Amino acid sequence: MTESIIPNVLAERYATAPMRAVWSAEGKIRLERELWIAVMKAQRSLGLDIPAEAIAAYERVKDQIDPASIMRRERVTRHDVKARIDEFCELAGHEHVHKGMTSRDLTENVEQLQVFRALEVIRTKAAATLLAVARRAEHDAALPLTARTHNVAAQLSTVGKRWAMFGEECLGAFRELEHLIQSYPARGLKGAVGTQLDQLSLFGGDASMVATLESEVVRHLGLGHVLQAVGQVYPRSLDFRVVACLCDLASGPASFAKTLRLMAGHELAGEGFAKGQTGSSAMPHKMNSRSCERVNGFHTLLKGYVAMAAGLAGDQWNEGDVSCSVVRRVLLPDAFFALDGLFETFLTILNQMEVFAMSVQRENERYLPFLLTTTFMMEAVRRGVGRETAHEAIKEHATATMRDLRSGITSHNDLLDRLAADARLGLSRADLDAAFARGQEATGAADSQVATTVAAMRTAAASCPDAARYQPGEIL
Amino acid sequence: MTESIIPNVLAERYATAPMRAVWSAEGKIRLERELWIAVMKAQRSLGLDIPAEAIAAYERVKDQIDPASIMRRERVTRHDVKARIDEFCELAGHEHVHKGMTSRDLTENVEQLQVFRALEVIRTKAAATLLAVARRAEHDAALPLTARTHNVAAQLSTVGKRWAMFGEECLGAFRELEHLIQSYPARGLKGAVGTQLDQLSLFGGDASMVATLESEVVRHLGLGHVLQAVGQVYPRSLDFRVVACLCDLASGPASFAKTLRLMAGHELAGEGFAKGQTGSSAMPHKMNSRSCERVNGFHTLLKGYVAMAAGLAGDQWNEGDVSCSVVRRVLLPDAFFALDGLFETFLTILNQMEVFAMSVQRENERYLPFLLTTTFMMEAVRRGVGRETAHEAIKEHATATMRDLRSGITSHNDLLDRLAADARLGLSRADLDAAFARGQEATGAADSQVATTVAAMRTAAASCPDAARYQPGEIL
Amino acid sequence: MTESIIPNVLAERYATAPMRAVWSAEGKIRLERELWIAVMKAQRSLGLDIPAEAIAAYERVKDQIDPASIMRRERVTRHDVKARIDEFCELAGHEHVHKGMTSRDLTENVEQLQVFRALEVIRTKAAATLLAVARRAEHDAALPLTARTHNVAAQLSTVGKRWAMFGEECLGAFRELEHLIQSYPARGLKGAVGTQLDQLSLFGGDASMVATLESEVVRHLGLGHVLQAVGQVYPRSLDFRVVACLCDLASGPASFAKTLRLMAGHELAGEGFAKGQTGSSAMPHKMNSRSCERVNGFHTLLKGYVAMAAGLAGDQWNEGDVSCSVVRRVLLPDAFFALDGLFETFLTILNQMEVFAMSVQRENERYLPFLLTTTFMMEAVRRGVGRETAHEAIKEHATATMRDLRSGITSHNDLLDRLAADARLGLSRADLDAAFARGQEATGAADSQVATTVAAMRTAAASCPDAARYQPGEIL
Amino acid sequence: MTESIIPNVLAERYATAPMRAVWSAEGKIRLERELWIAVMKAQRSLGLDIPAEAIAAYERVKDQIDPASIMRRERVTRHDVKARIDEFCELAGHEHVHKGMTSRDLTENVEQLQVFRALEVIRTKAAATLLAVARRAEHDAALPLTARTHNVAAQLSTVGKRWAMFGEECLGAFRELEHLIQSYPARGLKGAVGTQLDQLSLFGGDASMVATLESEVVRHLGLGHVLQAVGQVYPRSLDFRVVACLCDLASGPASFAKTLRLMAGHELAGEGFAKGQTGSSAMPHKMNSRSCERVNGFHTLLKGYVAMAAGLAGDQWNEGDVSCSVVRRVLLPDAFFALDGLFETFLTILNQMEVFAMSVQRENERYLPFLLTTTFMMEAVRRGVGRETAHEAIKEHATATMRDLRSGITSHNDLLDRLAADARLGLSRADLDAAFARGQEATGAADSQVATTVAAMRTAAASCPDAARYQPGEIL
Repeated sequence: MTESIIPNVLAERYATAPMRAVWSAEGKIRLERELWIAVMKAQRSLGLDIPAEAIAAYERVKDQIDPASIMRRERVTRHDVKARIDEFCELAGHEHVHKGMTSRDLTENVEQLQVFRALEVIRTKAAATLLAVARRAEHDAALPLTARTHNVAAQLSTVGKRWAMFGEECLGAFRELEHLIQSYPARGLKGAVGTQLDQLSLFGGDASMVATLESEVVRHLGLGHVLQAVGQVYPRSLDFRVVACLCDLASGPASFAKTLRLMAGHELAGEGFAKGQTGSSAMPHKMNSRSCERVNGFHTLLKGYVAMAAGLAGDQWNEGDVSCSVVRRVLLPDAFFALDGLFETFLTILNQMEVFAMSVQRENERYLPFLLTTTFMMEAVRRGVGRETAHEAIKEHATATMRDLRSGITSHNDLLDRLAADARLGLSRADLDAAFARGQEATGAADSQVATTVAAMRTAAASCPDAARYQPGEIL
Repeated sequence: MTESIIPNVLAERYATAPMRAVWSAEGKIRLERELWIAVMKAQRSLGLDIPAEAIAAYERVKDQIDPASIMRRERVTRHDVKARIDEFCELAGHEHVHKGMTSRDLTENVEQLQVFRALEVIRTKAAATLLAVARRAEHDAALPLTARTHNVAAQLSTVGKRWAMFGEECLGAFRELEHLIQSYPARGLKGAVGTQLDQLSLFGGDASMVATLESEVVRHLGLGHVLQAVGQVYPRSLDFRVVACLCDLASGPASFAKTLRLMAGHELAGEGFAKGQTGSSAMPHKMNSRSCERVNGFHTLLKGYVAMAAGLAGDQWNEGDVSCSVVRRVLLPDAFFALDGLFETFLTILNQMEVFAMSVQRENERYLPFLLTTTFMMEAVRRGVGRETAHEAIKEHATATMRDLRSGITSHNDLLDRLAADARLGLSRADLDAAFARGQEATGAADSQVATTVAAMRTAAASCPDAARYQPGEIL
Repeated sequence: MTESIIPNVLAERYATAPMRAVWSAEGKIRLERELWIAVMKAQRSLGLDIPAEAIAAYERVKDQIDPASIMRRERVTRHDVKARIDEFCELAGHEHVHKGMTSRDLTENVEQLQVFRALEVIRTKAAATLLAVARRAEHDAALPLTARTHNVAAQLSTVGKRWAMFGEECLGAFRELEHLIQSYPARGLKGAVGTQLDQLSLFGGDASMVATLESEVVRHLGLGHVLQAVGQVYPRSLDFRVVACLCDLASGPASFAKTLRLMAGHELAGEGFAKGQTGSSAMPHKMNSRSCERVNGFHTLLKGYVAMAAGLAGDQWNEGDVSCSVVRRVLLPDAFFALDGLFETFLTILNQMEVFAMSVQRENERYLPFLLTTTFMMEAVRRGVGRETAHEAIKEHATATMRDLRSGITSHNDLLDRLAADARLGLSRADLDAAFARGQEATGAADSQVATTVAAMRTAAASCPDAARYQPGEIL
Repeated sequence: MTESIIPNVLAERYATAPMRAVWSAEGKIRLERELWIAVMKAQRSLGLDIPAEAIAAYERVKDQIDPASIMRRERVTRHDVKARIDEFCELAGHEHVHKGMTSRDLTENVEQLQVFRALEVIRTKAAATLLAVARRAEHDAALPLTARTHNVAAQLSTVGKRWAMFGEECLGAFRELEHLIQSYPARGLKGAVGTQLDQLSLFGGDASMVATLESEVVRHLGLGHVLQAVGQVYPRSLDFRVVACLCDLASGPASFAKTLRLMAGHELAGEGFAKGQTGSSAMPHKMNSRSCERVNGFHTLLKGYVAMAAGLAGDQWNEGDVSCSVVRRVLLPDAFFALDGLFETFLTILNQMEVFAMSVQRENERYLPFLLTTTFMMEAVRRGVGRETAHEAIKEHATATMRDLRSGITSHNDLLDRLAADARLGLSRADLDAAFARGQEATGAADSQVATTVAAMRTAAASCPDAARYQPGEIL
């Protein structure tokens, strides 16, 4: 029995076609060819003798990508770049690519292009996430929620405000992504150790022509900046910056997912089911937060990729070496695949999740009396009861109520009944109910915070026109 | 025997007074008081009944900081924030601080202020580093260097270009730091779960007054942004972003230091000695790169702090908890102390390092003949020798020369002699010497790259006026 | 105002005196002196001219440790080891320490002694933890619990089994700790680059005497093994192994703490309060799992220290350097302080935690009907109902019950009522109650698993006689 | 154009067939079937009605593995385990597998089997590495080497001792691996939440039969231990322990490789070339340490996988969830592939590397005079020269010699000439030469250290009989 190829599980199981296309063998070859063509065009425009028809020929065959054929060449030449040059030239019937370039001029820039294009794929999904969270926040803005600190009921908020809270975290990371895309610099055509010797030779030592060539090529590829003084390689801290940004982007979704897992445990919300998928019939309560768990899993992976990228940064020996090679081959695509999978999963959750409003309300009823004890005390004091007396009485009843709830003597919170029955406090049941009713609406500035944050998320996402119509694929 | 207090070794041994001042007990209390005063001023300006003389009284005693007295209070109240409020109020003779604030309104914002002030301390040193690297790059711009890839001689560059290469990495991280400082958002006065309930109560439910209050306070403290929809805590991914930026800042210095350690092994350069310090008299060659090694050590620490910060991000349960507390108590100051120590060490290296120009030149002489074999071949071909013949002859001699150098048969590179003596090549000794002389100057665009990068570093550093006169303290 | 010293927050706030004693300035000096004395004794027994009275004199003054005096000497000599030698010799009135030793013979071995002694401090606490978990597991062995997977009710187990589950994780790590202590090798007296040149000179080139000297010294210090072929330093992967073991030891407590935080959110259990501490009177339900959160925080720190230790491993240049120095100064004590603090916190939790049995029982009542749907179906089938009919009917009712619970239409699980009322199933209320009663006891092998695991934990802890009486100190 | 599958680059490019076989789709299915068969055999021997011929039928078809067919079934059932059960049963023509088992009984144990088998693959290679390093250490045991600390010449050692030093680090990690393999515990057949409810039902509540079943199954699979009190999943700290051990195993090779890269920079050694491979003809000096760099790259990857595994440990919620699922799918195979690739690469280096003895000797000549200055001083003092006079004179000459070497005034170390010419020292050239000659042999205990360590490595490797004949495959 022959073993099948072991696939990249992140790519094949979780990531989407556009992201795979960036990192596939074919995708990389296509980017290489785009780079070569960009260089030829710039070289020609600067006077090098490269016929327009040759460039046209290369462009025509650009998408005829046959990895197997290239591999056959590599087995002969034992040089991977040479094999890909030969293949491309034979297809085009010309020999004009790679002039004045070293292998690193090709590979560094193409890998950066992969990073750059992958960042753009992520950008759309991150923006789509902002819109989806905004929608959720708006939808649940009016639903009061017992907010928790230390995983214990603390004060009233709203469900929408909780989503907006995580949405604002997503927004912060999205802005970092935009900043990264705008500031990302290419290594450029710098030659073997960074001095541009070969391009200079090609242009008879004319430094300004080499500078023009480089900036045209980089602009042509869509990047806005180019490094000046690199050696063989661009500084690997740039990879760290990229992967740290990816990990940053995962944090908001991860916190959201973790909180949704907690809420599912209390049956306040659930991540829902995909169309066609049904819960276990035998166990209808068993709505497992598998997708949320997966989001957290992707985040854990990304933290590992951050560690790998950190391991490469600040470790440059002289003008560079390839001790980073095997690491980057794994780390760069895998980090992007993981985040791509995370966004697909998170968007699916945002589409399908449910909030069980009645359960949320029931939880409020259970805890609100405790959360309002200070209010009750103030009411009693306003009616002339001594502060210490009121405090003592309320403390007594609150503690007893809690004890009875925990021991099962009562199954609902009857603190108000107890307070109403205590003559020391001088509060009628109606007084208490009124205070309670006001307390149920004490969600502070939650409303306006949701509105402000939703607006900010939408403004940010607007920079990315595809985001509004982006829908995640079906997840496993 | 009583044991002495165990000091924070990073703070006490490596970091500087301004950085310690940010994170010391006293420093934190001072920042708390500044926050309280800022809040009182804003509350007063918005109509709250806080007398100007009370604020003045608080300001007068702001710097009377007695941690021991506060600790005595804490032992009684068993509540740290309460103890600090009481101390400040008793000193001032008023009771107006902390109105409408919860503990987190104090602690989160003060910790963010610490981060923010610490970033500004770092900024000056990072800018000073840019200037110092620029100086070195300029100084050694004309000194040709055998650039290495894979730690092996590869092509000619210049020493100055090597420094500029690492300088450009520093510059990239510096720009990230500037971006971080400009975009860093405060949590603001949000109350226990983020809904601003208590401040709203204080201002009779007037949301716009609360918003004004918050923005005035934040502006007063020097920050430019405030989060809208946070819960109990600001998202911990913000801490990750900060620490990732610190680690990024360490990468350029770390690569520089690692390369200097390599160069010291070849006696091409050394990190020098501090004033008054002398090398071992018995072993004058033993110029240990202890400071460079330390720079690399700091970087390793920072990567660990990145792991800690990553461990906190994306792990928010509901509106927050304190599972991050002990981590942030350690991670935030220690990461800043480590980077502070790194910059002190790196600046010291930049001040004291030496390049041994003659050794650099001798290395060029050793390797240049090999680096120029392609040139020699082209010269032979130009004179009519068949390409294959020339290639064969040169390969023969180069391999033999290398073998003889490694086996000790010759101690200097005599490839030119051998080529001159080989009739197949038709190259006179003068031809070869001429080609060699030209080769010695083939440093490509290194000059202009240095100039461009130096200018960019200086422009960037100019945003930080203290940088030019900053000098590191004496290091251990 | 003068700033106070910045303390090591882990040491001063969380760790205990015995652990501080290992890593304090005084503690390190004491270990150095013990090493010197051990070396002198061994050297004397091997014939070196070191008078017994000199050794006695050193032993007499061993505990007269004055860091300030040593620091004054260091300022003069500018050499830390020299300063400590001088101090010790002057106190003793002899000059026999450090013969044939280099600085690294002192520092490497003393740092290893610190690690070794710190491991022994940890060992007692880890063993005490096993006993405390065992006690809890035994105590709650008979209390049925709705076990959860994906944070959702899954099947019945017992509370005791849950504790035993985490206890077994602790046990696994404890065995690793025992293995580490037994296999931990000292670097030994190897000289500047590891060849033992200086000791050999001292003993006239007699290798067997040097070997004996070394093994006697190492044995004297309590270690069982010594490395043979080290260079200047012992391999830093040994530090990684140590810190990985510390992190491993934290995992069981961390999972326990995390689950207790979840249970607290459901009011099934709480970490309790310290003696004298009271919960908030206003909010008696607010039993914050601060200590559990702290345990998780310590674990996050330890993962960062693992990253630091990993950063040092596999990075040895030649016979070694000090790029690890600043890292190890921080990482080794801090990792031990963190784990020490974790165990103190975890032992406190184990002492004070409460299980709310009635709440646990109420949760069982809520979920058990769902968990038993398969049983009900089998009962119906046994009575002759068609499998598909039974499945259909039960699914209908289960789904409806869940929906009504979530929507608040019912507040308790009435599935049994519904099933009893459905003629299709042919199950009487008594039949269902009987099945339900059996189901309530369906905790499988939980009992015997608890018993086995408790016994194993006690057996393991018995190797550590101090464990049984170890009690944690008061935590903040 | 259709995109090809994105392969797992570590598996397909670097790892070997035996390791791929453990983690491939087919390999996993085979292990599942082995587990099912083991369970059926044990169930039958304990009295369950499973015909011998059924088991025989399953065994016959065990290796008929068709992932595509299984995938077709999964698309229908939407349940992966069910699809694999159906496929196996249809092939065998029986329905006896998976009795009393839950999905986790299958998946957890099979994943552990994968880990266990992968550890055994690694064990052979780790043992082979010990033998290869031992061979190198023995081969170069007599070659004196200028040992370096801080990357600067420090004292004489031998090349063989340097290899033995790294070999001893490998040995330490190998012993940890043996310990791990011996102590690795299986989760066992524990059911959905760990209480063994279903197996107990199958055996009529007979706990001892269930215990026997489990221990037979585990023994049958080759593991020596089984966990008692697990929940749904085994503790993920066990994965951390495994990956930490893998990372530990990489440290010795990584330090070796890093030092070889340094030595290559000094032309003292090189990693050599594969058979058939030739260096660049144009640049014969350019012997790039690509394989060594790759070893360091693999180590960086492994540190990242340690971070991922650490991210899973101590994060168990209740009886477990699948937030670890996607992480373990990536982390476990990839960590093993990386280490597998590392050992292949390292073994190739050990086979092909070269030491340039004459260059090593020349370096000794350059530095030895400096290393011996203390010896020269003692010689002068023995001849009656005042200590201070001798020290002063030697210091003068040593410093001058160093300066002249660095400035290029001299190209070889002529310190002995200078000392011989200085009347103050009273040392003839012959005296100095004699001292120098003795110094050239002052490699201390290096010889015996090599012998001892080599013996220890061989003894350890002997436990693994395949190691001696293991040869790495061809690497890219």
